[in-house]
Amino acid sequence: MLRLQGEMIRGGTSKCWIFDHHEVVATGVDADTLLLAAYNAADPRQIDGVGGASSTTSKAAIVRRPAEPGIDVEYAFAQVGIGDERVEWTSNCGNCATAVALYAVHNGLVPITSDSTTVRMLNVNTGARLTGTIPTPGSTAPDEGTAAVPGTAALGVPVLLGFEDPAGTTTGRALPTGRALDTLIGPAGPAEVSLVDAGAPAALFEAKAFGLDGTESLTEFAEAVPALTVLRREAALAMGLADRNDPVSHAVPKVGVVARAASYRTTHGTLISQDEYDLAVRMVSMHAPHPAIGLTSAVALATAAAIPGTLAHSVARQTADGTLRLGTPAGVITAQAVPAPDGASPTVLLHRAARRIARAELLVPVLEGRPA
Amino acid sequence: MLRLQGEMIRGGTSKCWIFDHHEVVATGVDADTLLLAAYNAADPRQIDGVGGASSTTSKAAIVRRPAEPGIDVEYAFAQVGIGDERVEWTSNCGNCATAVALYAVHNGLVPITSDSTTVRMLNVNTGARLTGTIPTPGSTAPDEGTAAVPGTAALGVPVLLGFEDPAGTTTGRALPTGRALDTLIGPAGPAEVSLVDAGAPAALFEAKAFGLDGTESLTEFAEAVPALTVLRREAALAMGLADRNDPVSHAVPKVGVVARAASYRTTHGTLISQDEYDLAVRMVSMHAPHPAIGLTSAVALATAAAIPGTLAHSVARQTADGTLRLGTPAGVITAQAVPAPDGASPTVLLHRAARRIARAELLVPVLEGRPA
Repeated sequence: MLRLQGEMIRGGTSKCWIFDHHEVVATGVDADTLLLAAYNAADPRQIDGVGGASSTTSKAAIVRRPAEPGIDVEYAFAQVGIGDERVEWTSNCGNCATAVALYAVHNGLVPITSDSTTVRMLNVNTGARLTGTIPTPGSTAPDEGTAAVPGTAALGVPVLLGFEDPAGTTTGRALPTGRALDTLIGPAGPAEVSLVDAGAPAALFEAKAFGLDGTESLTEFAEAVPALTVLRREAALAMGLADRNDPVSHAVPKVGVVARAASYRTTHGTLISQDEYDLAVRMVSMHAPHPAIGLTSAVALATAAAIPGTLAHSVARQTADGTLRLGTPAGVITAQAVPAPDGASPTVLLHRAARRIARAELLVPVLEGRPA
Repeated sequence: MLRLQGEMIRGGTSKCWIFDHHEVVATGVDADTLLLAAYNAADPRQIDGVGGASSTTSKAAIVRRPAEPGIDVEYAFAQVGIGDERVEWTSNCGNCATAVALYAVHNGLVPITSDSTTVRMLNVNTGARLTGTIPTPGSTAPDEGTAAVPGTAALGVPVLLGFEDPAGTTTGRALPTGRALDTLIGPAGPAEVSLVDAGAPAALFEAKAFGLDGTESLTEFAEAVPALTVLRREAALAMGLADRNDPVSHAVPKVGVVARAASYRTTHGTLISQDEYDLAVRMVSMHAPHPAIGLTSAVALATAAAIPGTLAHSVARQTADGTLRLGTPAGVITAQAVPAPDGASPTVLLHRAARRIARAELLVPVLEGRPA
């Protein structure tokens, strides 16, 4: 039985385990084998491991001190399989990034020299650079806070999460096709789409193309998911993320619909008026409606809404300071695009929260290099 | 933020956190408040806590050294709410008892003096006495083992779990009504039932009364659950577990159907022939089919099958040594009723497995005596 130190941290609406790279190496087995066994990925209920048996609770980040200057922490994000002995290392997770930032201030990965500490992070999966700014009053790392995010009533330490120069991380361009508007062929014929790459590659359609107004409940929006799943594949091809011969990815690009703000009720029943937000959005997560929105998708939307000619720009309320309030099924999430120097694309800031749940020593059943 | 030491242990097909009573007391808040906050019971996804957001992964046991001789460990079992700020302290959990036994040998709650150690446990919720016998070769507590139980492919330390003198724990009698056969009025008219109390109070019907043969898949059996839910209430009244004015319990008594062994396929597709087991059983868990069977229900069945005149006795294959192989949706679970001295009811033995998953320090958000 291997031993592995880890911290269970809530970042936003995800539960992430954070591990130190050197501790992982010290176990003598590769990270995939270790995580599959630690989470009991083989079991759809993950009953023999620390996994939570849902996509938002079967996540890990492995952190290390960086090789390059200007970065405090490198992290690799892992989406650990559920009833599936595979670990996906292909994407970033903004919620886990907030957890990594909180971990960093608590574990000496960044010096705390004032009442506010900014952790500069590199996501090695995608090359994305992020910052997490955390209040450190009296130069101490906080365990408590009163910040909240849509999707949970729990409170935590406020983390201002910044996506630095997010445009083109995956493809090199904010608009991978060079156009703000493309047409893809879906199951119901041609559909206009804006293909953007910022935070994550995303294919954004207009809600009305699917007979929707963008304020639907999760159940109502679910009816459009099969068509959007087909279109996700077409978008991946158009953006150069996949070839026809590649297996179909259900994670890349992000896919969803946008619409003008209109009043709606959140999943928990709160009425949101059309004046309380700037852009209605309903995203897909794998094969189901996303209960809120992934943070990397929020970055894509904030970037798209700032580019004239995109569908997001055409329906979003424009604000003077780059603030974009996104109306999601869980509530309103506010993103702000802040001009960056040196020709970099605008930094996108998101107000998030994180909380350390537990510090643990995991007992990991690995036999002869394979999960037991 | 409160600190609380705990161990996450898989017991059979449940994931249980085990806490020490003195550590709980030392936090200065009551156990309900502490567990509700530690598990984030308020959230249906338990995203801000150590709960696993399912009934089998939102369990805890609080252990202490006993006040009375003849017992090594007392434990209180807690079923922590999911999207519901309540802790249920009304029942026992056999899977958590196996976890408690493994915790006890690892934490010095019982002396290890030979190659096998028996932990004598008292469940303070119900007054049930159990034993957990664990191999301790070389007088050391094991972390690894190759024992398996139906419902998970994971391996663990073998735990022979014994329910001591299980009859009448709740009501004082193995047959609370004094009869092996009763008739209750359900939604489709009168239904014969055997009401037994051993391990837990249970109401056992014949499958054919619901048009079933007892080998149904979970989906097929689900159609009988609404009727059985109504009958559970009638059984609770008949057994003296509730009055007409009491709120309806969805946990007490256990309710299910029995039938003669016949070949069937488990949920995972394994073919089980009629010779491989002795009694077909399909139980209800709250409002849904149980994926296997609760251990206390297995004790009730083993006891009922040994009492002439009960429905279980009439359809079970009788064996010479008290062994009863139960055919459940997840596979075959073997119980053995062993004669006990001094007029006590037969001890029921079950072969189970447990594994320590993690040792942790939990950070619990409690503000002013209430979950934050």
